[in-house]
Amino acid sequence: MSDLYNYGSFTMPGESGYEELTLQLAKKWGSDVIRDCDGTKLSDQLLSAGMDVYSTICIIREHNAFINEHPEYQQQVFLESGRVLATSSAVSITLLSGYFTKQFCVNKESTSYWQVYDRTTDTVVPRINWSFDAESDSVTIQGTTQWHHYSVNFLAFRIWEEINMYNHVTNSWDKEPLKQLDPRYPEVQEYLRSWLTTWCEEHPETDVVRFTSLFYNFVWIWGGDERNPFLFTDWASYDFTVSPLALELFTAEYGYRLTSEDFINQGYRNPNHMAWKQKMVDYLWFTNRFVCSFAKELVDIVHRYGKKAYVFYDDSWVGMEPQSEAFGTIGFDGIIKCVFSAFEVRLCSAVPGKLTHELRLHPYLFPVGLGGAPTFKEGGNPALDAQKYWVYVRRALLRAPIDRIGLGGILHLVEGFPDFVDTIADIAKQFRMIKELHQRSSVYKVNLKVGILTSWGKLRTWTCGGHFHEHPDLDLINILESLAGLPYEVEFLNFDEITKNNLESIDVLINAGFAGSSWSGGEHWKDDKIVTMLTEWVHDGGVFMGVNEPSAVQGYANNLRMAPVLGVDVDDGRRLCHGLWKVEQEASQLKLDIRKKDGVYLIDGDTKVLQEKDNLPVVTERSFGKGKGIYLSEYRYSPENTFALRSILEQSKLQESLYCTDNPLVDCAYFPEAKTLVLANGSGQKQRVVVRIGKEFIPAEVEGFAIALISY
Amino acid sequence: MSDLYNYGSFTMPGESGYEELTLQLAKKWGSDVIRDCDGTKLSDQLLSAGMDVYSTICIIREHNAFINEHPEYQQQVFLESGRVLATSSAVSITLLSGYFTKQFCVNKESTSYWQVYDRTTDTVVPRINWSFDAESDSVTIQGTTQWHHYSVNFLAFRIWEEINMYNHVTNSWDKEPLKQLDPRYPEVQEYLRSWLTTWCEEHPETDVVRFTSLFYNFVWIWGGDERNPFLFTDWASYDFTVSPLALELFTAEYGYRLTSEDFINQGYRNPNHMAWKQKMVDYLWFTNRFVCSFAKELVDIVHRYGKKAYVFYDDSWVGMEPQSEAFGTIGFDGIIKCVFSAFEVRLCSAVPGKLTHELRLHPYLFPVGLGGAPTFKEGGNPALDAQKYWVYVRRALLRAPIDRIGLGGILHLVEGFPDFVDTIADIAKQFRMIKELHQRSSVYKVNLKVGILTSWGKLRTWTCGGHFHEHPDLDLINILESLAGLPYEVEFLNFDEITKNNLESIDVLINAGFAGSSWSGGEHWKDDKIVTMLTEWVHDGGVFMGVNEPSAVQGYANNLRMAPVLGVDVDDGRRLCHGLWKVEQEASQLKLDIRKKDGVYLIDGDTKVLQEKDNLPVVTERSFGKGKGIYLSEYRYSPENTFALRSILEQSKLQESLYCTDNPLVDCAYFPEAKTLVLANGSGQKQRVVVRIGKEFIPAEVEGFAIALISY
Repeated sequence: MSDLYNYGSFTMPGESGYEELTLQLAKKWGSDVIRDCDGTKLSDQLLSAGMDVYSTICIIREHNAFINEHPEYQQQVFLESGRVLATSSAVSITLLSGYFTKQFCVNKESTSYWQVYDRTTDTVVPRINWSFDAESDSVTIQGTTQWHHYSVNFLAFRIWEEINMYNHVTNSWDKEPLKQLDPRYPEVQEYLRSWLTTWCEEHPETDVVRFTSLFYNFVWIWGGDERNPFLFTDWASYDFTVSPLALELFTAEYGYRLTSEDFINQGYRNPNHMAWKQKMVDYLWFTNRFVCSFAKELVDIVHRYGKKAYVFYDDSWVGMEPQSEAFGTIGFDGIIKCVFSAFEVRLCSAVPGKLTHELRLHPYLFPVGLGGAPTFKEGGNPALDAQKYWVYVRRALLRAPIDRIGLGGILHLVEGFPDFVDTIADIAKQFRMIKELHQRSSVYKVNLKVGILTSWGKLRTWTCGGHFHEHPDLDLINILESLAGLPYEVEFLNFDEITKNNLESIDVLINAGFAGSSWSGGEHWKDDKIVTMLTEWVHDGGVFMGVNEPSAVQGYANNLRMAPVLGVDVDDGRRLCHGLWKVEQEASQLKLDIRKKDGVYLIDGDTKVLQEKDNLPVVTERSFGKGKGIYLSEYRYSPENTFALRSILEQSKLQESLYCTDNPLVDCAYFPEAKTLVLANGSGQKQRVVVRIGKEFIPAEVEGFAIALISY
Repeated sequence: MSDLYNYGSFTMPGESGYEELTLQLAKKWGSDVIRDCDGTKLSDQLLSAGMDVYSTICIIREHNAFINEHPEYQQQVFLESGRVLATSSAVSITLLSGYFTKQFCVNKESTSYWQVYDRTTDTVVPRINWSFDAESDSVTIQGTTQWHHYSVNFLAFRIWEEINMYNHVTNSWDKEPLKQLDPRYPEVQEYLRSWLTTWCEEHPETDVVRFTSLFYNFVWIWGGDERNPFLFTDWASYDFTVSPLALELFTAEYGYRLTSEDFINQGYRNPNHMAWKQKMVDYLWFTNRFVCSFAKELVDIVHRYGKKAYVFYDDSWVGMEPQSEAFGTIGFDGIIKCVFSAFEVRLCSAVPGKLTHELRLHPYLFPVGLGGAPTFKEGGNPALDAQKYWVYVRRALLRAPIDRIGLGGILHLVEGFPDFVDTIADIAKQFRMIKELHQRSSVYKVNLKVGILTSWGKLRTWTCGGHFHEHPDLDLINILESLAGLPYEVEFLNFDEITKNNLESIDVLINAGFAGSSWSGGEHWKDDKIVTMLTEWVHDGGVFMGVNEPSAVQGYANNLRMAPVLGVDVDDGRRLCHGLWKVEQEASQLKLDIRKKDGVYLIDGDTKVLQEKDNLPVVTERSFGKGKGIYLSEYRYSPENTFALRSILEQSKLQESLYCTDNPLVDCAYFPEAKTLVLANGSGQKQRVVVRIGKEFIPAEVEGFAIALISY
């Protein structure tokens, strides 16, 4: 690769005490930015080494002194106690039993927000029938129905900032646990404004204040038993934003009151993966407006000191919602996303606004990585890890521009891993080359626009919440991972956005997920207008692709409301006595590696079975007017499945990529104004390919993990 | 085996033209009864051979002359037309499109009972908006909503008696198709009374009139496409009993009107496997009373001629309901059940009343058997088939008395299969020996009473509807097949029968099936009182065993309402973000060969996992007060699983069989008053066993398929 690509767009962590190593690696990697990390400080020598300086702050923690004086300003959460059997006419429930008591303490002053439930009948116990004993943190219920189970919804303070708690517990730190502030309270806002002003004054060397991140962590409720340490974890839910003040402000604004049960929701809570009721959607926008408005005040302070403000798109990101209008008003200058996968690159790239889009690559410079596997220690192979993550990331980089990349962690750990250092240098060069191509040319796209229909729409652009490995079973995250590296325009729509006008530009609309999930849409499918409009749209030439239980909702003449278009439905047992249309597979090259789904059946003899498994339709296609319905029993990301998905999508609209390869392992991106075609080998082995360039077919070879350029 | 067992209790088919063969086999098999079959007549020589004579009549067919004069008295059914897309403001639907038109014709005079549906919104189209064209048998709907699907619920005559139709089509018969009469009509009743009287007068030689069977066939709706020949088939549903007259009589009696949609039920119809709404339950009892009252009139005629009346418990049995009170009033002298499996023996044996319980064994004497496999033709091995069916049947015969066995079919087909003739002779001897033991002694039972809780209760005693091979995936049919050969008392309860009093005698209550099924109970579980009473009962010492999705109903704080007792629940996706309790298998000998069920999780750390698969709990046990909750992810019949089930049941109540073997393949039944212990080898190979008799352990051997007696 040319030496042109030796410098810039690369952020490295610095480490005091390892100044020489830092500067040597800065040169090797072409770093133009140096950063500190959680728990590290940069020395003067590093701060003045000619690189820009990022300084990380976690705005809601490191204020233990203030919090110790004002414990009532700590963040809170609604918890449900354990469910206890009433064996007589009274029952006593210890509220925090089963929870990690270093994370929570009962908010003893908040009983007016609590609710006691008979969970057998799911009815509220009248307030007069229960009493709270602040001494023992327990509730006693009188007049219980014998042999019913009871529980208490209560408010708890979160007394240990969750990321700090995780690092403490994982690494057996011997430091003071950090508490966290809730900036809902005006007194806290006042304190934080003042604190940040002081901080800016004391850090003249800082060019970029890197917020890690804003105010409210993704929900992470810990249990007290090591056999079930994490009771509830969701990257994109709002459980950790609640407080009495927030509830009162919500009531004032919306004219109705949220209850504890809206949050507890029969113990199911409100994970981002389930289609939410309107109340919780209201609460999301309510919280989003607050988070962004106070974030804007803080960013204004940073700007007043001539510094830029970047935000880390993880940890305490809840309420920020980068796809919301309010986010744009904050004025962040950059956003940084840590990435394992292609879809996360698109997630970052898709954040609107004129801000710097930066990636934090894996592995982080820590002794152990994901799931406790060794990284920078004996038995680790961080160079190979870096290559493997990079090939995921690179697929998406070829399709969507990103401004910067970088690393995090403890720098000196790379000592003893020279191949890692070399690999990162090579990755940085590849990155700069791809970035420059995007600057010289837009990248070629097939004339095919894919719409993704979920209950979230644009709000969850390019994500299902969290990393791929957290929910690998979600069909949509797998589809997004495939699409992230394919040459199509992708638009995310919610059910309100299913209008004739919006559908006009969509070629293929995908609805993918299990029944009731936010990804398939849940009760949104009760809206007949949606079904009618989509039916018309397909009849007029659109392609509706359903995966797993698309358009599933109970109560109708089909379990999948789009069954007449898809040509398949999913039986829940009610059709046990109905005959099944014989599943006869068409002659087809299609070999998606996906599982069958029990209960899937053909609604009549007109649905073509493109792939079957054990007599169940796995991939089907149905002509419907001028359009098509396509069904997949599930979808899982792999290079081979991506290749097959591409073929299904392009065949469905008779659109064909003019620039592509015949090898699933080798991606191909064409930059027309740069007259450059990039081949990227996603495997560790050398690959031979035939590249299609327009009407020509050209053989080529690409080394393992490498990229190759063809001028054309 | 002793010669004592050479004669009696055996019914054989006779065949005119094969008189010598018939008499020779009668001697060999010890037949005391000779019968005719569908389409065969016995000659005078056979009628006077000293055997009793059964004559089969199918009361509702073989009246084509009468029917041709009164086609309005044919039986009917509600059908739903195909669902047709409205691409404009009108749509025309051909009613019988997709149906087998030799089975149905539209009842053109019945439009007042029809309903037209917008199936997209599931709303009825006003009568004024549609018209029926009797010429083309089509309905035209005006004012349709574009892009909605429409269908018509209509009444059709069934113009070919279904069993006759099946035999015709399967065997390419060249005879006049037989039509069928609906005895709902007083004119038909009058005709049939007169016809039966004449028949009795003309058949003085007949000892037993064998009704095959009563009036209404199990539902069997055929399609017009060979890729889906049978559109709806259920052995125990009431679709084929309907008529305008029945509907009017129902309204008069119940004070409310049933609609076509009550039967069509969004196209799902009302299979016996789904928990029914009360309306359909009302309709069942309404029909049952009519069927039994008119059957009584017919049986009275038979009795007036000094003959006995037996009924075949298959084919047109619907409405008869042998477990109903009304059945007892008919006065049948015998009931005959064809059996493949052990549970069917118990089903027959459990029919109350002082009537002869007779089994029809498989294979029938036909060239091909189940699924078209050769039987009495080249490639067939009917002797082995007979042995294999017999070992299923014998398991149950050891537990419950039966009066007679027999064969059906075309007798001369046994020529060339001398080993079959020998096998049947041996089976007949075994049968007589077991029958005699039951006469001399009750059979030993373990002190353990099992309750089976379903929405049907006693009405579906020992059955889930149909043969085992028709729905082998139902957990309950598998459990019944196992229990049919185990030494426990078994009682069938519905949800109304869950009372303190009834529960008192039950040791283990089993609830087994998928969510919404009649076997698990569906919406019956919305009754808090059921949950409360069972919770108390378990707390006081009862054992609640749930299989698959026991007590499942939507809308509560658990998906399985008995989750707090079972200690497991089934996630439908809503708990995707919840942590899972680690699945740690107890040291256990248990090795049930069953599949895991996705979504099953432990509700807390107190549930013991007796067996796990891929980190999912497959068999669990939970102490709850003095009782226990036991969960199985599924159940499938096999000798080995039966052995494991026995161990789970007996351990749960600390009850132990005093007479048993250590070999799953060898059953053991003890007849204390006869001081005889029977070992029955269910496999084709010789088996060694250790028999437990009280506190002694005795080694023994049993030849393949054979039985051995131990006097004790």
